[in-house]
Amino acid sequence: MYKDIDFAKLDIERQKRKGFSEAVFCECKTSDELIKIFSVFKENGQNVLGTRALKEQYETLKKIFPDIKYNEKGRVLTLIENQPIKIGEVAICTGGTGDIAVAEEAAATAEFYGSNVKKYYDIGIAGIHRLFDKIDDIRKANVIIAIAGMEGALGGVITGLVDVPVIAVPTSVGYGTSLKGVSALLTMLNSCSEGMTVVNIDNGFGAGYSANLINQKIECKK
Amino acid sequence: MYKDIDFAKLDIERQKRKGFSEAVFCECKTSDELIKIFSVFKENGQNVLGTRALKEQYETLKKIFPDIKYNEKGRVLTLIENQPIKIGEVAICTGGTGDIAVAEEAAATAEFYGSNVKKYYDIGIAGIHRLFDKIDDIRKANVIIAIAGMEGALGGVITGLVDVPVIAVPTSVGYGTSLKGVSALLTMLNSCSEGMTVVNIDNGFGAGYSANLINQKIECKK
Amino acid sequence: MYKDIDFAKLDIERQKRKGFSEAVFCECKTSDELIKIFSVFKENGQNVLGTRALKEQYETLKKIFPDIKYNEKGRVLTLIENQPIKIGEVAICTGGTGDIAVAEEAAATAEFYGSNVKKYYDIGIAGIHRLFDKIDDIRKANVIIAIAGMEGALGGVITGLVDVPVIAVPTSVGYGTSLKGVSALLTMLNSCSEGMTVVNIDNGFGAGYSANLINQKIECKK
Amino acid sequence: MYKDIDFAKLDIERQKRKGFSEAVFCECKTSDELIKIFSVFKENGQNVLGTRALKEQYETLKKIFPDIKYNEKGRVLTLIENQPIKIGEVAICTGGTGDIAVAEEAAATAEFYGSNVKKYYDIGIAGIHRLFDKIDDIRKANVIIAIAGMEGALGGVITGLVDVPVIAVPTSVGYGTSLKGVSALLTMLNSCSEGMTVVNIDNGFGAGYSANLINQKIECKK
Amino acid sequence: MYKDIDFAKLDIERQKRKGFSEAVFCECKTSDELIKIFSVFKENGQNVLGTRALKEQYETLKKIFPDIKYNEKGRVLTLIENQPIKIGEVAICTGGTGDIAVAEEAAATAEFYGSNVKKYYDIGIAGIHRLFDKIDDIRKANVIIAIAGMEGALGGVITGLVDVPVIAVPTSVGYGTSLKGVSALLTMLNSCSEGMTVVNIDNGFGAGYSANLINQKIECKK
Amino acid sequence: MYKDIDFAKLDIERQKRKGFSEAVFCECKTSDELIKIFSVFKENGQNVLGTRALKEQYETLKKIFPDIKYNEKGRVLTLIENQPIKIGEVAICTGGTGDIAVAEEAAATAEFYGSNVKKYYDIGIAGIHRLFDKIDDIRKANVIIAIAGMEGALGGVITGLVDVPVIAVPTSVGYGTSLKGVSALLTMLNSCSEGMTVVNIDNGFGAGYSANLINQKIECKK
Amino acid sequence: MYKDIDFAKLDIERQKRKGFSEAVFCECKTSDELIKIFSVFKENGQNVLGTRALKEQYETLKKIFPDIKYNEKGRVLTLIENQPIKIGEVAICTGGTGDIAVAEEAAATAEFYGSNVKKYYDIGIAGIHRLFDKIDDIRKANVIIAIAGMEGALGGVITGLVDVPVIAVPTSVGYGTSLKGVSALLTMLNSCSEGMTVVNIDNGFGAGYSANLINQKIECKK
Amino acid sequence: MYKDIDFAKLDIERQKRKGFSEAVFCECKTSDELIKIFSVFKENGQNVLGTRALKEQYETLKKIFPDIKYNEKGRVLTLIENQPIKIGEVAICTGGTGDIAVAEEAAATAEFYGSNVKKYYDIGIAGIHRLFDKIDDIRKANVIIAIAGMEGALGGVITGLVDVPVIAVPTSVGYGTSLKGVSALLTMLNSCSEGMTVVNIDNGFGAGYSANLINQKIECKK
Repeated sequence: MYKDIDFAKLDIERQKRKGFSEAVFCECKTSDELIKIFSVFKENGQNVLGTRALKEQYETLKKIFPDIKYNEKGRVLTLIENQPIKIGEVAICTGGTGDIAVAEEAAATAEFYGSNVKKYYDIGIAGIHRLFDKIDDIRKANVIIAIAGMEGALGGVITGLVDVPVIAVPTSVGYGTSLKGVSALLTMLNSCSEGMTVVNIDNGFGAGYSANLINQKIECKK
Repeated sequence: MYKDIDFAKLDIERQKRKGFSEAVFCECKTSDELIKIFSVFKENGQNVLGTRALKEQYETLKKIFPDIKYNEKGRVLTLIENQPIKIGEVAICTGGTGDIAVAEEAAATAEFYGSNVKKYYDIGIAGIHRLFDKIDDIRKANVIIAIAGMEGALGGVITGLVDVPVIAVPTSVGYGTSLKGVSALLTMLNSCSEGMTVVNIDNGFGAGYSANLINQKIECKK
Repeated sequence: MYKDIDFAKLDIERQKRKGFSEAVFCECKTSDELIKIFSVFKENGQNVLGTRALKEQYETLKKIFPDIKYNEKGRVLTLIENQPIKIGEVAICTGGTGDIAVAEEAAATAEFYGSNVKKYYDIGIAGIHRLFDKIDDIRKANVIIAIAGMEGALGGVITGLVDVPVIAVPTSVGYGTSLKGVSALLTMLNSCSEGMTVVNIDNGFGAGYSANLINQKIECKK
Repeated sequence: MYKDIDFAKLDIERQKRKGFSEAVFCECKTSDELIKIFSVFKENGQNVLGTRALKEQYETLKKIFPDIKYNEKGRVLTLIENQPIKIGEVAICTGGTGDIAVAEEAAATAEFYGSNVKKYYDIGIAGIHRLFDKIDDIRKANVIIAIAGMEGALGGVITGLVDVPVIAVPTSVGYGTSLKGVSALLTMLNSCSEGMTVVNIDNGFGAGYSANLINQKIECKK
Repeated sequence: MYKDIDFAKLDIERQKRKGFSEAVFCECKTSDELIKIFSVFKENGQNVLGTRALKEQYETLKKIFPDIKYNEKGRVLTLIENQPIKIGEVAICTGGTGDIAVAEEAAATAEFYGSNVKKYYDIGIAGIHRLFDKIDDIRKANVIIAIAGMEGALGGVITGLVDVPVIAVPTSVGYGTSLKGVSALLTMLNSCSEGMTVVNIDNGFGAGYSANLINQKIECKK
Repeated sequence: MYKDIDFAKLDIERQKRKGFSEAVFCECKTSDELIKIFSVFKENGQNVLGTRALKEQYETLKKIFPDIKYNEKGRVLTLIENQPIKIGEVAICTGGTGDIAVAEEAAATAEFYGSNVKKYYDIGIAGIHRLFDKIDDIRKANVIIAIAGMEGALGGVITGLVDVPVIAVPTSVGYGTSLKGVSALLTMLNSCSEGMTVVNIDNGFGAGYSANLINQKIECKK
Repeated sequence: MYKDIDFAKLDIERQKRKGFSEAVFCECKTSDELIKIFSVFKENGQNVLGTRALKEQYETLKKIFPDIKYNEKGRVLTLIENQPIKIGEVAICTGGTGDIAVAEEAAATAEFYGSNVKKYYDIGIAGIHRLFDKIDDIRKANVIIAIAGMEGALGGVITGLVDVPVIAVPTSVGYGTSLKGVSALLTMLNSCSEGMTVVNIDNGFGAGYSANLINQKIECKK
Repeated sequence: MYKDIDFAKLDIERQKRKGFSEAVFCECKTSDELIKIFSVFKENGQNVLGTRALKEQYETLKKIFPDIKYNEKGRVLTLIENQPIKIGEVAICTGGTGDIAVAEEAAATAEFYGSNVKKYYDIGIAGIHRLFDKIDDIRKANVIIAIAGMEGALGGVITGLVDVPVIAVPTSVGYGTSLKGVSALLTMLNSCSEGMTVVNIDNGFGAGYSANLINQKIECKK
């Protein structure tokens, strides 16, 4: 059911149970640990997604797994045996340029699990005409991810304009009363626009995973 | 575009723009205000959903709108002209009996907008066999709503067992360090189980709205 | 310089020093105390503004000061000897109907001290077309007050669209993570839109006072 | 309307819409990104203001833009094509010497956008005679910026003594219960002195922008 | 050493050990419990001080102890067998009229234990000339108690002007970000004025006790 | 395995699985719901423990279950078919008289599940000789419960003096910075005395349950 | 009774009084201080346990005390003269691999004081079958330690399945709303599963100490 | 009245007004700034006290002021022209060895301003016999400073045993829920022991200053 490698118990049947393989949170893991984990998944014929990976971790792993890919902005590793065909569409929007790392994590995750992704960066509400310019494209997606730090109002404004499920991601971008993302989180949880749900601060992976899951359900039932 | 009745600007074209009509947050509104608002929507041929309604508000409105219905546990008013056909399925789970008010708000909302709802109450993790007994039914839904106060772990446990999008709702049930739902909210935001998103504390309406929206998208594309 | 009435020291020369007379925070004061305070100011030929006044306080004071006026929604008392001519313009906007009490306090304050006021209620971002409909009027004011609870995004959106100073007021409207206005306050403090400053939660008086002060400076220098 | 350079959408018409050009938050941006952004604004004939800039960023940009200026204390970059004539007056006060970085950011901002600035540093309330010595000069300004950390009482004391709009800036200076500026922020939001509004912790830029905006409105209507 | 009356263990030798008799916190105690406690102390020849006493508690106790006194504003009960001679001087200052209940608790406490008290109410910093008017009297005391809610800056301003120990008491007066006294508490803890210490929010008793203790030490060593 | 009564799923086999029967949290349940729940447990031959029960709930239940007992101070209901023999000893200590309600809940719980209980009330550290008087008795117990509000230091002082496991319970007694028990909770979690663990604020039931569990394990292995 | 070495007063009779020798918190102590402290305990014939020790501290101490042992993962030093015989059993479970450092501190502590330890790592609820696989072994222990960060639900799930006392340890593992372990702490304090108590965030030592204490009491009474 | 050196306004008459010269907070000041400040005070014949000084700052200043002294543990600089005769006595107690830095700051401050100091380190409540051993000496002082981190209970225990004013200082020592000293601060503010007041976290200077002030008042009136 799972592979016990002493310091970790790898859920190699998650793909069967949950539909998608387990992801590896790389931060704080040693290279040795990562190599063992990636090896087990690879041996079991599974694609591997690693999040919060440092460039040095990538460089070490590349020596063992030459096919591994690294999205540096999103700090995401992918080691893919069988690329699923991408279907449907997830729109990923950010309020500012500082939110791009989280957006790239979300994008890489949604693509890894089989969704087409379109990106709309730096369309925050301080210059709202930038958002209005793009809104007709954005609402064509099956799911929208809205990523913003500081005041975090992007998600509520978009949600008020579309009839598509929106997943909001607060980011830790900012200073002072941004309180490392808590301000943006509260904004999103309190939105009066209906149809938005929220994930943890900086959790691009979680947003990408949920967006893909909804996108798959919509497409697969067609 | 909207109806301006001085103290409020009613979004009577939201159904066209967002796919679903506007809901009325009844708490703190006077009966006079509610009558005006319900009248405008009714005159414009729209079903009306009122949330956080007191029994006295219901009794006053019933004199004007004899067809109005009241879900007392969920404090939800519905005044329906044309009931949409219910499709798909939303599963609504609660950790304890204290979470039922929020669950009923979610259920009434999802049904109002056109989803079939199945309820699984009091299946929290303190007696986890109750959850395991039901999990095969729960995972048949298109969307799951997991509602819990106190430690709020229900959502994470369910999400780990299914491949269906889960919307978690923290409730303000509890005492001491439950901090009126903040503890359960944090638990849910920090879940390591992939596929769960979160709404505001006690926001049964928001969960029901988003669950229905996803359910509709899945069913309508079939 | 000031009038010492034992339990209070009334700043009867504030009008000379600060340009505007002192306001009386009525909450928690006994009717006897209010009567003494209003009497002193009246005897010194000053207009009196009372905030957070209960209806019962008004009714008691009316017997002594038949000319006293009461704005019930804003809970504001005014006892006016010499109405200043109103000049310029302050625009007061609210996100929802629940914010109207604070808006009325701000409006009554700005008018008391000599500003014309225009009101734009229930134009929050969940239905942003309502705001766009009004924005060309709003930006004609010398100062804008933006009042909102819950997510509190109204101020940032307006500020992004105008070149007028904006004063944002968070309100304690909401539930759960609104945290009695703290969420809206944080949103406003973190806005990326330039030209907005913030006052305390529910502080309609402070916003009205500052807005009038800026409006007077602009108009009086013409 | 705006210039899309992939990772950012530059609001090159903000000067037209808002009256003042967009500012660039330099922290966390790469030198390459800054060069691209500054180039676009320069090509469009706009003055550029960069905040939170490191000395190394300045040194790199100076090679490309030899006319760029750097205020090291305030960490502010300015690249000016057409210096606006400075009008009116903004007074900038600090409680202690530790608040000077924020004060310089505010000063550089207000000057960049066209205001004369006078500085009054280290006049906090622990030695209140220092403040009284300067108050007659301070109150001649059109707008006052009061900057303080720790207890943050400077703004309230000044506001009680003048009939000029005051913008208070809490700073993160301090230790222990200063809570990185939250203590000073709360002090300022709770001030009983009328005529003060507040911006985010350490937000010298925001205070300078709003102060200039009000100063321009007062002067331009003369 | 102490008297055990089942639900409480009364410290009847505290006067010997600590110099002053124990005080009784009346809130939440039944009248029966209070009667038992007061009786034990009285029987042991001790003066009794009761804090946070309701008027009804006073009225019940008065029937049993006809000599009992009640300070209604400060909610303080005193049952005195041998009034100590009052010596020295404690100055008690408040920022506003809303702080008077706490001030009266402090005053009654300091007097009960043997200090002369002078009161200076409503001298907060919004009209700082009121404070300056009194400061030469205030600084003649051996100890100063500074009581303020909202921004809580009174203590720091006074401390900057005197060479007398100051005890600051934050009060829960206010609304919004006063956070029931936490804002004023933080202001006081962060004061840059040397010579001030702080007690719990609304703890007039504690301030009065400590002020008397210092006052006694100063006077008794003369 | 469990009894499904629609609004609740009663864990009637918990006694078998966990060793002790389920407890009923009475707060917020209607009398009808309580009657149903108590009936099911009684029918299944189980003793029933109800916590946080109001006197009115007791009076209603007494009509149906004449043998039901009510501990009014601790708000605990017990309906006992087969009283287990009480073994071992749990010592329950409180800092003040205000903590007695929580102590009685803990005592009733530990006794219900089969432990002997000794009570030591009002022995807080403000008069530490009261604690030292009792410590030789206290340390004879198998487990100690230390209950305190406000500063909450009782647990740490006791733990430093004994070699017995201590369970600390913070209470919501206090005002101002007691923050409804959070202050006492933090004190207890930070204790440097080894051998103490902590439960939720006011959670007398949880402390009594765990204390009994440890006491049973110690005694039953003898 | 204790050894006074100027900067510290070493409790060399704690073994007699509390049953177990004092532990040394190494963080922030200089090597010189550690050498003095270890020497005193060694000279008094006591085993020494050092927690939160850096590798460099170990390497310096090893030169003086060649028999000293270092558990690098748990950052624990042990200098043992007379190893107590290990009895009974403590089960130590972690939710993820990131919690292992805390688990090793708990394990080393429990073993140092004389308990057998079994470890169950990475059995968190995101893949709950891993926990179910082990639960029959886990429940054989006398005491269970459940260690988890992020959502922290592991303790509640285990406690619901066993009739053994559980000590829960929240860890600071996570990001965003994990709030450095506060989220997991709140989850654990709010658990509805009976029989669990909690220690400070990352306090592996405290959990190991209390678990051993309970384990010893159970075993020694056999 | 004060010396204006551009970036700072030095309060060279504070000695006259407040009785004691101004202290210099060295943290974040450049060596150049410190040299200027120390020079001005020295030229005006004043002793100088510098707090939070780094060793490097000391070494630089020593080149200019060869007589300057540095207390490395307490990070305190003193440059003394005329040492005041030390009178009375201040007792300084710490809970643990980690609190010594703060204690040394307090000691150096009290001595600088003219008090005799006695130190009692590492007498926290985890081994309360260490405190009892010293209490008869401690209570001979005119003022007691009680310094503790983590649970912070030392102050309350001491205060319960003496009739001397106690100033409590919370320290940021600890981890997890110590919340950088907030836990200890709350403990101290909530103490039920009468006669204790509190200063900011880690504010050894403030405690030393206030203790000396009270000590001087007591002694000088003799």
